[in-house]
Amino acid sequence: MRHALDITRKDDFAAWYQAVVSQADLAEESGVRGCMVIKPWGWGIWERIQRLLDDRIKETGHENCYFPLFIPLSYFAKEAEHVEGFAKEMAVVTHHRLKSENGALVVDPDAKLEEPLVVRPTSETVIGQAMGRWIQSWRDLPLKLNQWANVVRWEMRTRMFLRTSEFLWQEGHTAHATGEDAMEETLLMLEVYRSFAEDVLAIPVIAGEKPENERFPGADATYSIEAMMQDGKALQAGTSHYLGTTFSQAADISYQDDQGAQQLCHTTSWGVSTRLIGGVIMTHGDDDGLRVPPRIAPHQIIVLPMLRGKDGDGDIIAYCEEIRKTLTSQDAFREPVRVLLDPRPGKAAQKRWDWVRKGAPIIVEVGPRDMASEQVSVLRRDRLWREDGKADINGESRDDFLFNAASLLEEIQENLFTEAQTRRDEAIRTDIEDMDAIAEYFAEGADKPGWIRAAWSRPTGEALDRIVEQLKALKLTLRNIPNEGGKPEAACIFTGEEAAEYIYIARAY
Amino acid sequence: MRHALDITRKDDFAAWYQAVVSQADLAEESGVRGCMVIKPWGWGIWERIQRLLDDRIKETGHENCYFPLFIPLSYFAKEAEHVEGFAKEMAVVTHHRLKSENGALVVDPDAKLEEPLVVRPTSETVIGQAMGRWIQSWRDLPLKLNQWANVVRWEMRTRMFLRTSEFLWQEGHTAHATGEDAMEETLLMLEVYRSFAEDVLAIPVIAGEKPENERFPGADATYSIEAMMQDGKALQAGTSHYLGTTFSQAADISYQDDQGAQQLCHTTSWGVSTRLIGGVIMTHGDDDGLRVPPRIAPHQIIVLPMLRGKDGDGDIIAYCEEIRKTLTSQDAFREPVRVLLDPRPGKAAQKRWDWVRKGAPIIVEVGPRDMASEQVSVLRRDRLWREDGKADINGESRDDFLFNAASLLEEIQENLFTEAQTRRDEAIRTDIEDMDAIAEYFAEGADKPGWIRAAWSRPTGEALDRIVEQLKALKLTLRNIPNEGGKPEAACIFTGEEAAEYIYIARAY
Repeated sequence: MRHALDITRKDDFAAWYQAVVSQADLAEESGVRGCMVIKPWGWGIWERIQRLLDDRIKETGHENCYFPLFIPLSYFAKEAEHVEGFAKEMAVVTHHRLKSENGALVVDPDAKLEEPLVVRPTSETVIGQAMGRWIQSWRDLPLKLNQWANVVRWEMRTRMFLRTSEFLWQEGHTAHATGEDAMEETLLMLEVYRSFAEDVLAIPVIAGEKPENERFPGADATYSIEAMMQDGKALQAGTSHYLGTTFSQAADISYQDDQGAQQLCHTTSWGVSTRLIGGVIMTHGDDDGLRVPPRIAPHQIIVLPMLRGKDGDGDIIAYCEEIRKTLTSQDAFREPVRVLLDPRPGKAAQKRWDWVRKGAPIIVEVGPRDMASEQVSVLRRDRLWREDGKADINGESRDDFLFNAASLLEEIQENLFTEAQTRRDEAIRTDIEDMDAIAEYFAEGADKPGWIRAAWSRPTGEALDRIVEQLKALKLTLRNIPNEGGKPEAACIFTGEEAAEYIYIARAY
Repeated sequence: MRHALDITRKDDFAAWYQAVVSQADLAEESGVRGCMVIKPWGWGIWERIQRLLDDRIKETGHENCYFPLFIPLSYFAKEAEHVEGFAKEMAVVTHHRLKSENGALVVDPDAKLEEPLVVRPTSETVIGQAMGRWIQSWRDLPLKLNQWANVVRWEMRTRMFLRTSEFLWQEGHTAHATGEDAMEETLLMLEVYRSFAEDVLAIPVIAGEKPENERFPGADATYSIEAMMQDGKALQAGTSHYLGTTFSQAADISYQDDQGAQQLCHTTSWGVSTRLIGGVIMTHGDDDGLRVPPRIAPHQIIVLPMLRGKDGDGDIIAYCEEIRKTLTSQDAFREPVRVLLDPRPGKAAQKRWDWVRKGAPIIVEVGPRDMASEQVSVLRRDRLWREDGKADINGESRDDFLFNAASLLEEIQENLFTEAQTRRDEAIRTDIEDMDAIAEYFAEGADKPGWIRAAWSRPTGEALDRIVEQLKALKLTLRNIPNEGGKPEAACIFTGEEAAEYIYIARAY
């Protein structure tokens, strides 16, 4: 078979990733340092992610709102711990005017702001201030807010979708009367992220608590979903933080309880970002480009008329339009099927491979012979090649195809998930018993290292620091302690003490 | 009657506006200069606007995408004319790091950017650069893009929704092979805005061309929709620009035609913003707060159980939940009816008036007596008061209400439009024949001045400048030349020459 990309995952995974981003027409460098242009196909995937996750955020009782892009520098000073841990690499607005000088445009030195404004890297500070204003009594609780926004972190090394200076995300911020309520919310949103990643993105994830050293600055506990990419590295795909009263103290988020006493609120925050698209690429992409799970595909089915630039073309397009209409009137995943009829000029084979690289789940080709025999030629993106190395395009009765298309989409969604889950499960080692064995397993040149699931006793403080240092020398990090891990029948691989839980160890993005 | 706001439109329109923004819980000052916090009810209206306008943008063949927040200063230099006309008041990022100094956070002087980055005030420059890269041949045309984004203009005097330093909008940018194609697109989007304003926002507008002096910098022609607010002032609610080849020349947006010759593209841009919410307030608000047109109401019907804090409350809530479910299963405007059951603690009357101020189209109250007699008490926000000065709450059979609710929503939508249209049409003077008469009509103290529709001969250059100056002294501006105005049977009121068209003159926001 001749693959549709000129580089394979095995050759160079990082270069393959960039090739998919570019050749699936997802995004490109913008000319602005660390910022990307998200192109229509990439944006369409993000719109689907937004729509479906937003539904779940609303179903769980949250309201959307919008807070300012700029945060006065002084707001950060109030949350010393938060900022200390946070990268200080932020974009800072210092002036508010340009002027012409000798025919050139320059920053007007007379237009310096009294107080610099930071472009939000996250909005705990400004939303905390508002919560302090809005919450008076126990009747105002819980307050469950979310916003979809762009944020900026001045990253030194950027990679499209995975780490960009500007990125898009949703950030949830909630305030509660008690620590129990806030913890329940933290775990609720972790579960929303887990089920969203698995059911919608078809990405299997481990939901669990981050170890102490990986907590969000200011958080009492941080939870994450961790996904395994095809190179065996972990991608933290979403986080949910139980913030205790750290931010309530800083912003005076307090309420009068039903006895008339003043109490501090307990808060949470949680977010996922455009990074998820990077996760989709590295989970489902193959040597022919992207494969988009049907639930987030902007177009789920592409109808490609094989045009000859001749008189019969109009008939073929009309035949295709009928197919498009019939498909659109059906539901998959309880939504109307999304179908694109692509009658643009150009060679049919080239157009087919463009859609293959973009990862449209189903491509249906219709030529004059198909039309004459009431057939269509169907290509499934999840099963592209036959064993003989030819593209697996199958002639099929049009009516059979129309009858089965919606369930075929659901089948493809499930196949992608199962494939990813099987690959991940096979790449998790559970039999490694000490640091030496870890070092051996992750030695340079070891093929496809994957993750380690180890028993551990949750060491803290300096004991934890030493473990983190040792792992760092191997470029490894502690990922998370799975919620559903159960109790090991083994001793902690670091301390030898009795272990109450498991932890995942991996290289990571 | 005792109104739900403590200020009326007649008392002080500007103060009334701020009272509605605040008491309908739409938005509030953020503490960050010129930036507002959009609260859940205000954001919910914006989400509705986004969703319904986005559908129309896609139906007319545009694709969404996303470009960077930051634009390098040098990009602006290329479009001298564009920037010269544009306010130079922009937020400029000059540094990328904070540091701690004597326990305080300061901007790190060692982290100065090599090139300042401007926070986008609009994206012609950066999108033009991308179009230059993406367009090679006539086959790539037309290229029809849109993005939903935040933009920043450093406004000196801000007013919530109407003029804020950061605001949210959509900006469409398209490139075409010929001037005719680009002009057709410009007018198509003007028509999309017109029908959206009228059918969705229930705001009657005049669609037409701006006079030469009001063109977007760099545009060959600018079109707008103009709405009349209740104080008689005009609000420019959306613009569509035919940019000719100005931006194509600057960013080298060119294509090879089917003869192999290199040609410049013709481009357009068009946008509407969160300002539309200001227009909704000033068109539909009354002395009791906001009235939200049903199509953009986040909740169209509020079901309010009259709870007593007694045993029977559970039964009332269950009865209300049945009503909510039945309503939600129906369609209004070909979408499921959006219903909120509001069982929060609090006095029933206070909750009713909260929803009145927010402008929910229909409020349904259910007490024990309603439930016993299978009734509901219905309040229509478009007809709040009886002639005797009491709130017009009507007992009605529950089944009748359920049967009629969807069409009642459609009726309220239409009523709001008709009311606004009648008011506007009555406030347009068409009998004013010269500048003196204009001055007299707009003299200080004149009650409810409204607009003037005048015959004019489209003067240009210095002749136009003189007219603009004279009008400016009266705080008046030329609004637009209506597309549907026809040919006047009169001479130009400024030049006395034969007039081929009309123009609207008004005070404006």
